[in-house]
Amino acid sequence: MKIAAYLDQGRPAVGIVSSDLLTVLPLQVSAAEAQLGALPIVERLAAGQPLPATGAPVALDAVKLVAPIPRPRRNIFCVGKNYHAHAKEFAGSGFDSSAKSGGDIPSAPILFSKVPESVIGPDEPILIPAEVSTAIDYEAELTVVIGKGGKGIRKEDALKHVWGYTIVNDVTARDWQGRHSQWLLGKSFDTFCPMGPWLVSADECDGTDTRVKLWVNDEVRQDASTKDFIFDIPTLIECVSAGITLYPGDLIATGTPAGVGIGFKPPKYLKSGDVVRITIDGIGELRNPLR
Amino acid sequence: MKIAAYLDQGRPAVGIVSSDLLTVLPLQVSAAEAQLGALPIVERLAAGQPLPATGAPVALDAVKLVAPIPRPRRNIFCVGKNYHAHAKEFAGSGFDSSAKSGGDIPSAPILFSKVPESVIGPDEPILIPAEVSTAIDYEAELTVVIGKGGKGIRKEDALKHVWGYTIVNDVTARDWQGRHSQWLLGKSFDTFCPMGPWLVSADECDGTDTRVKLWVNDEVRQDASTKDFIFDIPTLIECVSAGITLYPGDLIATGTPAGVGIGFKPPKYLKSGDVVRITIDGIGELRNPLR
Repeated sequence: MKIAAYLDQGRPAVGIVSSDLLTVLPLQVSAAEAQLGALPIVERLAAGQPLPATGAPVALDAVKLVAPIPRPRRNIFCVGKNYHAHAKEFAGSGFDSSAKSGGDIPSAPILFSKVPESVIGPDEPILIPAEVSTAIDYEAELTVVIGKGGKGIRKEDALKHVWGYTIVNDVTARDWQGRHSQWLLGKSFDTFCPMGPWLVSADECDGTDTRVKLWVNDEVRQDASTKDFIFDIPTLIECVSAGITLYPGDLIATGTPAGVGIGFKPPKYLKSGDVVRITIDGIGELRNPLR
Repeated sequence: MKIAAYLDQGRPAVGIVSSDLLTVLPLQVSAAEAQLGALPIVERLAAGQPLPATGAPVALDAVKLVAPIPRPRRNIFCVGKNYHAHAKEFAGSGFDSSAKSGGDIPSAPILFSKVPESVIGPDEPILIPAEVSTAIDYEAELTVVIGKGGKGIRKEDALKHVWGYTIVNDVTARDWQGRHSQWLLGKSFDTFCPMGPWLVSADECDGTDTRVKLWVNDEVRQDASTKDFIFDIPTLIECVSAGITLYPGDLIATGTPAGVGIGFKPPKYLKSGDVVRITIDGIGELRNPLR
């Protein structure tokens, strides 16, 4: 099942995308719920309630997709350096001392957050705040959508708490990430969390073995399997939920593969006019221009 | 003006505390707004709207105070190592290499976050998750409450965006803080953000020069003036808002003075049965037992 949030003639709506990707079946929810996109739907399903009634199908190309969860209930959990190849690339980039960001291969998951208001949807522009930073980098990330919440979730039970997946571009101001030591600021600038194109339920995407690919314009920059994860999804859920209660709709971005801009010498940062495209097998494509 | 959130015979309410601290004047808001405590009130005031009408005064000792903003709109912004004396103590604690947390005296503000659901109110217990961590530490912090939001706020205008202040205890699992490199997890365990006893408007508290004091049981552990800040409040607001739009009710915990448990040899961590009390001149007292 794919749940998309969209504007239908400017009005917020949420619906189920058909398997041929041609139409969307609107779900009948209140105007207040529609503003929250797929979040109240995931909450209902996690509580064992049925989907709301559906209306008449609408052509997908007649609506404008927005982020599937346009305003998460709290900051998005994000994992740093979680692919073996990227961890090596990052350590070799001269970005920082290895001690500062957990060593070449971290011995424990590195968790930071992005503010909810940094979320934008498909095709919305990522804004380069030229007066603040021009070291703007991309990070393609498979993102876990929590279904049933919980605390103290054990690895062996963790996948039961995964409702599904979406794509996030963990856009980063590298100079801010480095200068401020903790990563919150450099990760949370307005528009720095493109998300979409929709949520996909776990039966349609095997998060443990899917392909994550990113292009800047026509150049492939990232291309990896999530089999290269240092910490797998059950380990991440066990780790986060050890002390923190997880809720339905919580988002955990699982880290990015090798090929980020700062890994090149000289770094290949994003510039106005660029277009970043991410595909993840089983989910779809997320595309955003830079402005 | 002091705005308190409280339960009146179990029903969520918000009101203005009298200057003699004997009564609270309930503000007439919807049940949904009352659940959010002082947040909708700060939003109204920031938008230039008047206070809601008030009801008959209630004795303060007849109600149960809860956190003034029981569920912040997003994670709480927190500043690390922002008092000169604490930065030295922390560097000397062997907690981590100085590079990892920004050097002895950070050259730029260190910003991380705590999840909104970690918030608890006055007298609510801080829970020690003994199976997860017993290296639980306290951090008394003056916390800025943003009034008028904005982006790219300059230092010289920043104090106009401060509605007021409250007290936060930035409770921390030191082993998690160190092991996971980024601080989100070790700072965000359930119950790890005691807040209160109320919000105080900026005219009643000079955040640039006030006294922050913390006791564990009857022992004074922290006692400092915010004059010892490495980065003052205008600098913090300029820094956060450079790339991130701030909203009314956003919270920025400004860092903690010297005297944290990890600064002692051996460390003096919190244990079940302890009581932590924080006072900040111009605000009041926040007290929480450990369990």
